[in-house]
Amino acid sequence: MPTYKAPLRDMRFVMHELLDSETVLGSLKGYEEVDKGLIDQVLDEAARFSETILQPMNQSGDAEGCTFKDGEVTTPKGFKEAFKQYCEAGWLGLDGDPEYGGQGLPKILAIATGEMSTSANASWSMYPGLTHGVAKTLHAHADDASKATYVPKLLSGQWTGTMCLTEAHAGTDLGIIRTKAEPLDDGSFSVTGQKIFISAGEHDMTENIVHLVLAKLPDAPAGSKGISMFIVPKFLVNEDGSVGERNTMMCGSIEHKMGINGSATAVLNFDGARGYLVGNINEGLRCMFTMMNAARLDTGLQGLALGEVSYQNALAYAKDRIQSRALSGTKAPDKEADPIIVHADVRRMLLTQKAYTEGARAFAGWLALHLDIEESHEDEKVRHEAGELVALLTPIAKAFMTDNGSTVCNYGMQVLGGHGYIKEWGLEQYVRDVRIAQIYEGTNGIQALDLMGRKVLKDGGAKLRLFGGIVEAFIKENADDEKMQEFTGPLAVLGKEVHESTMKIGMKAMTNPDEAGAAATDYLRVLGHLVYGYFWARMAKVALESDLSDSFYKAKLQTARFYYQRLMPETNTLLATMLSGSDVLLDMHVDAF
Amino acid sequence: MPTYKAPLRDMRFVMHELLDSETVLGSLKGYEEVDKGLIDQVLDEAARFSETILQPMNQSGDAEGCTFKDGEVTTPKGFKEAFKQYCEAGWLGLDGDPEYGGQGLPKILAIATGEMSTSANASWSMYPGLTHGVAKTLHAHADDASKATYVPKLLSGQWTGTMCLTEAHAGTDLGIIRTKAEPLDDGSFSVTGQKIFISAGEHDMTENIVHLVLAKLPDAPAGSKGISMFIVPKFLVNEDGSVGERNTMMCGSIEHKMGINGSATAVLNFDGARGYLVGNINEGLRCMFTMMNAARLDTGLQGLALGEVSYQNALAYAKDRIQSRALSGTKAPDKEADPIIVHADVRRMLLTQKAYTEGARAFAGWLALHLDIEESHEDEKVRHEAGELVALLTPIAKAFMTDNGSTVCNYGMQVLGGHGYIKEWGLEQYVRDVRIAQIYEGTNGIQALDLMGRKVLKDGGAKLRLFGGIVEAFIKENADDEKMQEFTGPLAVLGKEVHESTMKIGMKAMTNPDEAGAAATDYLRVLGHLVYGYFWARMAKVALESDLSDSFYKAKLQTARFYYQRLMPETNTLLATMLSGSDVLLDMHVDAF
Repeated sequence: MPTYKAPLRDMRFVMHELLDSETVLGSLKGYEEVDKGLIDQVLDEAARFSETILQPMNQSGDAEGCTFKDGEVTTPKGFKEAFKQYCEAGWLGLDGDPEYGGQGLPKILAIATGEMSTSANASWSMYPGLTHGVAKTLHAHADDASKATYVPKLLSGQWTGTMCLTEAHAGTDLGIIRTKAEPLDDGSFSVTGQKIFISAGEHDMTENIVHLVLAKLPDAPAGSKGISMFIVPKFLVNEDGSVGERNTMMCGSIEHKMGINGSATAVLNFDGARGYLVGNINEGLRCMFTMMNAARLDTGLQGLALGEVSYQNALAYAKDRIQSRALSGTKAPDKEADPIIVHADVRRMLLTQKAYTEGARAFAGWLALHLDIEESHEDEKVRHEAGELVALLTPIAKAFMTDNGSTVCNYGMQVLGGHGYIKEWGLEQYVRDVRIAQIYEGTNGIQALDLMGRKVLKDGGAKLRLFGGIVEAFIKENADDEKMQEFTGPLAVLGKEVHESTMKIGMKAMTNPDEAGAAATDYLRVLGHLVYGYFWARMAKVALESDLSDSFYKAKLQTARFYYQRLMPETNTLLATMLSGSDVLLDMHVDAF
Repeated sequence: MPTYKAPLRDMRFVMHELLDSETVLGSLKGYEEVDKGLIDQVLDEAARFSETILQPMNQSGDAEGCTFKDGEVTTPKGFKEAFKQYCEAGWLGLDGDPEYGGQGLPKILAIATGEMSTSANASWSMYPGLTHGVAKTLHAHADDASKATYVPKLLSGQWTGTMCLTEAHAGTDLGIIRTKAEPLDDGSFSVTGQKIFISAGEHDMTENIVHLVLAKLPDAPAGSKGISMFIVPKFLVNEDGSVGERNTMMCGSIEHKMGINGSATAVLNFDGARGYLVGNINEGLRCMFTMMNAARLDTGLQGLALGEVSYQNALAYAKDRIQSRALSGTKAPDKEADPIIVHADVRRMLLTQKAYTEGARAFAGWLALHLDIEESHEDEKVRHEAGELVALLTPIAKAFMTDNGSTVCNYGMQVLGGHGYIKEWGLEQYVRDVRIAQIYEGTNGIQALDLMGRKVLKDGGAKLRLFGGIVEAFIKENADDEKMQEFTGPLAVLGKEVHESTMKIGMKAMTNPDEAGAAATDYLRVLGHLVYGYFWARMAKVALESDLSDSFYKAKLQTARFYYQRLMPETNTLLATMLSGSDVLLDMHVDAF
């Protein structure tokens, strides 16, 4: 059975040594009291909960799965009790508005605790994760009455939430959804239609579920400009806030999936169900994007989190498993064979896991800090710039972190050899669980189009220049530091290549939009390497300025080198393939495939 | 539910148009009568069997799995009956020696029919696959009496076979196995020990199972030079060939795995079981390699086969599923949205599937033909050279084809978006089923070491030069063909790079063997691209010399271009990373990971 130990040392490194979040947060409204002591305390508590409550029911939850009967869903043994404990400890409302019962802590802490719970139990973490997102969305877009009714119950975990977007014929393309919302005399709406793939759509953990449903009014404009958002609670809510009569919506079934089996993925049938408008009519997609952007970062985190726990278990196996001798001669003469960690190729896999995971953690922490800055900095220009950076980097966080997460989990499994394929050892579950992260919340292909089209080309590269400026400033700051040249040199080259290739693709896309589509996925990975390269260079710098006789810092420096020598060169290929044009993709006749 | 249609057009292209196997086989002893008509007839029949018998029970077999009770294993519904039908039709003995009841057909046909059955049902195909391998091994190494007793029963499928190598503490490192074989007075042996991960190790399909077991005699030398091979039948065989008393060996349990759930993976306990020596004492590993080399090609085929069926279903979905509009404007104005195959990024995934799959098919066909040449050519030098090429390319077939197979199956799933993650659609099963192929029969990391060490460096690059010569000859032949330059140009460059980097690594490895280990996996992929690049160039040539108004040939040419522009450039990265040295991998202290 796999084990999990929260990587607190590395989390503290990111928060305190790399990002100096105490100082940054101290300058933000509402976070003046968030100091190192508080951060460390929260991390310790979250670690304890994830390690002792969530991790032990991860494998059993996978084996047991959710069961559906007569419209009701039973979650795996222990899920309900753990959710109650989690909520009672206040975790769900960690970064929620104190006015609505939240704890008012920064996003960067929520990210760290979310990583831990997901490492320990990705399926279980879906329930609080969705609920958290719904609370945030309602907090941002609902009217005061709805906020008062729903947000405190969500932040306390008394109720959970879902996002109901997808229909059988409409996934990526929400413009063609068919769910209808007809206005009723009292200002509410009658919602009718079917939604599929609804995570946490039905379960036995709470007394009520708050569904955020996208639907169209009878006279709505066609396409994505005619979508509105509604609160459709499983049980209607009485005036006094208590749970009232059952709404006319039912869970029709749940899916049998490759993984995250403890997370109920529901088909929901709305049959004239009572719904309440959130935000303005026909602006539902804009409201949903509040949720989706947070959800995309959270999805990226799944890649990081499952990669981390896969790495931990692969590493333990590689140290323990003895098999053959090192090519360069016996390393463990007292044993029948050497531990497999002596082999270069095993280390290649482990270091890939380590480099992608720690790179992701640094990036995610930085991004979360910028979410906090965007929300709470007193200077509007700073808030705006933080928002621009978050917008640019969110699709990279979602796609790059989950693609790498799949690679990392597959390597973890590979390190175990045959044992990796056996359920008992647990590594194959991580491969299955992480795989959905490349698909939902917008497939990674869609993220790439979002990055290329909406985030880079649409504003003529302004957001990209903003991030490029940060990278350039770092390179300049370290121009005289000889020890940093092995990082700043390649980073500067990659920055220049990104600049040039963005121009080239932008030019080509002006005459043929398919050129953007043809380059998008490779382009996202190139930018991903620029981002990770930047953070690995920064981490190397911290390490170089620390005590290198401490193995933690030495390993940081060595992992940075590994990243630069072994992973970043993927751009050698990507820069070529992404400029190879769209003809080679689009020339083939559909019938000739 | 996924569908499968055998890719007969492409198989015939490979056999007849690309490899001209009729002519090649016609020159080999025993295959004089294997003509195009016979080949096509066999392919048609195999297609029918795979499509109508095996495919329909693929998903049910996965869901049902094998069940273990009191030492006995029940295979999924239909498996037993299909096996009987398969054997009655003579498929198991297709390329077996007619003297022992085989049909005496060439390996290239066995490869093609094996691809089909594996596409249709990978789990089921394990049973005949293992049996076929055991028959081949005994045919090659057993004494006449054992051959007479076992080979006909195996080729007819009356009995099945297994290879029992792995023990709980010994997988890659067979030198440390603990299973003991003690000589008995009658010349047989008493075998005691436990074997794990034994595919088809126990089941309900046949009256007997023939286990090939690696064990050590009491006085055997330590390590891999003290391993002997034994036949240990589940039931002892009477003088008249009928099944006698139960041998003292039992199935202790079966594994719960990520995939190939219809294939029973058994723990086998041998308790003084009666065994019969195969080959010479202490030469068991050499005997087993006969089986393992064939098994490695067969494993590579799993990557091809599951990639093919994943591609077919992803393609069908991409043509059918409408979602959003093409970036370059509406393509299906009569529909609510365009089919997703209009999108460049979806085509990137589909073409990757197509290019890797068809490249693998060409390579595997060529390799199988060289197995036939190695076995049956009248000229010893030709036989020897064919053997050298097979030895060089077998690890590439195993590792490159299965790594690509995983990529291909993951793309197939990705094309389906959320539906790809749902069991009902079947695409996720291919991802799970294909994943084991990167692990068993020697992990792909082991294949890379085998290639680098035993196949390339050990003979000073002689085998590699042999293959390089074939590639060079092709480039020279086409030096004046302008239309071929887009292929022969990059192929020549890659050939040169392979030559140079092999020299560099060879030099480095002379002073530090870890340098070979550090480069091995990337090196294998570089050679894999040289191999596929060669076959794609040859396929492009056939296409260019054919009627390009036929969409099949046009698509071949376009897919060759895709391979050269989008997939082969992976070598840009690999050539850099594989030369980055071993320090970045080995410098880190074990405790610092």
